Amino acid sequence: MSDRTDRTVLVLGSDPPPKLDRLAGRARVVFADETTLADRLPTADVLLAWNFTSDAIRESWPERGPRPRWVHTASAGVDRLLSPALIADDTVVTNARGVFEQPIAEYVAGLVIAMAKDFYGSWELQRQRRWQHRETLRLAGTRAVVVGSGPIGRAIGATLLALGVTVDLVGRRERPEDPEFGRVHAAGALNGLLPHADWVVCAAPLTEETRGLFDAAAFARMPRRARFINVGRGPLVDEAALEAALRDWRIAAAALDVFEREPLGVDSPLWDVPHLIVSPHMSGDTLGWRDALAEQFQDNFDRWAAGEPLLNVVDKRLGYVPVP
Amino acid sequence: MSDRTDRTVLVLGSDPPPKLDRLAGRARVVFADETTLADRLPTADVLLAWNFTSDAIRESWPERGPRPRWVHTASAGVDRLLSPALIADDTVVTNARGVFEQPIAEYVAGLVIAMAKDFYGSWELQRQRRWQHRETLRLAGTRAVVVGSGPIGRAIGATLLALGVTVDLVGRRERPEDPEFGRVHAAGALNGLLPHADWVVCAAPLTEETRGLFDAAAFARMPRRARFINVGRGPLVDEAALEAALRDWRIAAAALDVFEREPLGVDSPLWDVPHLIVSPHMSGDTLGWRDALAEQFQDNFDRWAAGEPLLNVVDKRLGYVPVP
Repeated sequence: MSDRTDRTVLVLGSDPPPKLDRLAGRARVVFADETTLADRLPTADVLLAWNFTSDAIRESWPERGPRPRWVHTASAGVDRLLSPALIADDTVVTNARGVFEQPIAEYVAGLVIAMAKDFYGSWELQRQRRWQHRETLRLAGTRAVVVGSGPIGRAIGATLLALGVTVDLVGRRERPEDPEFGRVHAAGALNGLLPHADWVVCAAPLTEETRGLFDAAAFARMPRRARFINVGRGPLVDEAALEAALRDWRIAAAALDVFEREPLGVDSPLWDVPHLIVSPHMSGDTLGWRDALAEQFQDNFDRWAAGEPLLNVVDKRLGYVPVP
Repeated sequence: MSDRTDRTVLVLGSDPPPKLDRLAGRARVVFADETTLADRLPTADVLLAWNFTSDAIRESWPERGPRPRWVHTASAGVDRLLSPALIADDTVVTNARGVFEQPIAEYVAGLVIAMAKDFYGSWELQRQRRWQHRETLRLAGTRAVVVGSGPIGRAIGATLLALGVTVDLVGRRERPEDPEFGRVHAAGALNGLLPHADWVVCAAPLTEETRGLFDAAAFARMPRRARFINVGRGPLVDEAALEAALRDWRIAAAALDVFEREPLGVDSPLWDVPHLIVSPHMSGDTLGWRDALAEQFQDNFDRWAAGEPLLNVVDKRLGYVPVP
């Protein structure tokens, strides 16, 4: 069997290189980093964005000439890829839908309970060797607004529903009937929902419509008891506005797993904002996730090689994979 | 309407006194503390164990002579009440079944997720202003052994099931068919289940059969990845054996909400055992719980006054309210 070296898969990010055993003998696999990507893009049929935290693809996507016909990103969000040139041409973009939903939903449920039960207060008291009983919140009967009606938002919503929380799911467009949530609210309904929220969870894709969605005005609409969680993308939130809302006790608490600039620098003020939980963009990353991502890409490669339709095709103008 | 002062309700614990408005005009309400209880017991028709952390009832229950015909405790566990004399006579004991189940189940689910996602590690890193991504556990597909098949154990099990965890519920007796869990394992099956557990949750009543159930041998049977949670009663666990298991990394982590002696003294070694989460017996205590407990007692008082059967009657020989 001879190598099909007429197919080239270019991988952005070589540390650690994914296991792409199933491509052996079927395609030439070439690696690139941020400095070599632009040179190598014209030589590739397929681009695998393994380092999905890089802006290099958006910045170096060719305006013209040869370029990959398919880009797969090992992430749910595609905001870092989509340049106007990539949106405009007919290259297909696919994402890692299916890998992160359940882990992120578990993570968010854990944050909600940790906040409701004041685990952070208990831990601080433990450090001080102080026995101080408190009464905490009962989750059942509280109300969550989950922004983002894609698979991740839906998984979060379903998990909160299972915990007895009433869930308002907000998407781009209204869907008046939904088998799981009764309905999906349109983006325009968010302002009316925020005042009634105990929990506000942001799991939206980052698009021009959602950038800065959680700004000072949004935090002002939340009740003082509200707790805010962002597992979407950092720029969905005006971090300074969130910090001000927490420092002034205008909302009760928040948790950020994603940030405007990642990694968060040691001198960021966010590390010690009161009642703010900071974690390093890890909500979806469970043991084995890299293997799962590599398998998922190779499953799609099988389809591509066979001329079959790809899974998880992104609507590049919307900026995400539309739910059917 | 004249006071029915022929009925006396004695309340152990006066700080804070419960709202017993619905007893007004229907019974004389008398308060006692641990020093006056013995004197006042013979004068009471009903005893409300509002301070349910006291051993005074067990220690001063009369061997003979007049005594309350009904004892209600504002707790799920009745281990602090049941003296041989109280077990032997025909006084009815009722408990607070129904108030604590859902809050405790939420609390345990939160602990499980906090451990799976290493929230405690993230919080420590936040204190150090360090961005350190880790891969954590996916909950779905893990296996929990929940010891205690009463309403609290069942609520914990149901919540873990909803999170995709496989649950083995262990009770006193085997029930080969169970609508929610498939089956309930007999106590004797525990040893065989422990080696396969990712999570071991103790929500058993404290009885002579369960005292010291989680000893060095039990921890030795758990795999190194096991995480142990006790929301039952402190003496169900050999604390020294747990400490040794954690210090030697023979299990991965533990969380104790209940202790052999409460409150935990400032000099207890448990405060800083590695990978041990300590909280002050609060897993079931959500805002409004005292009101709910007072309402529940008064609902049962209505039944008692009308000569109707009481709810939540404890099987004094078993030491808990049997599930029908």
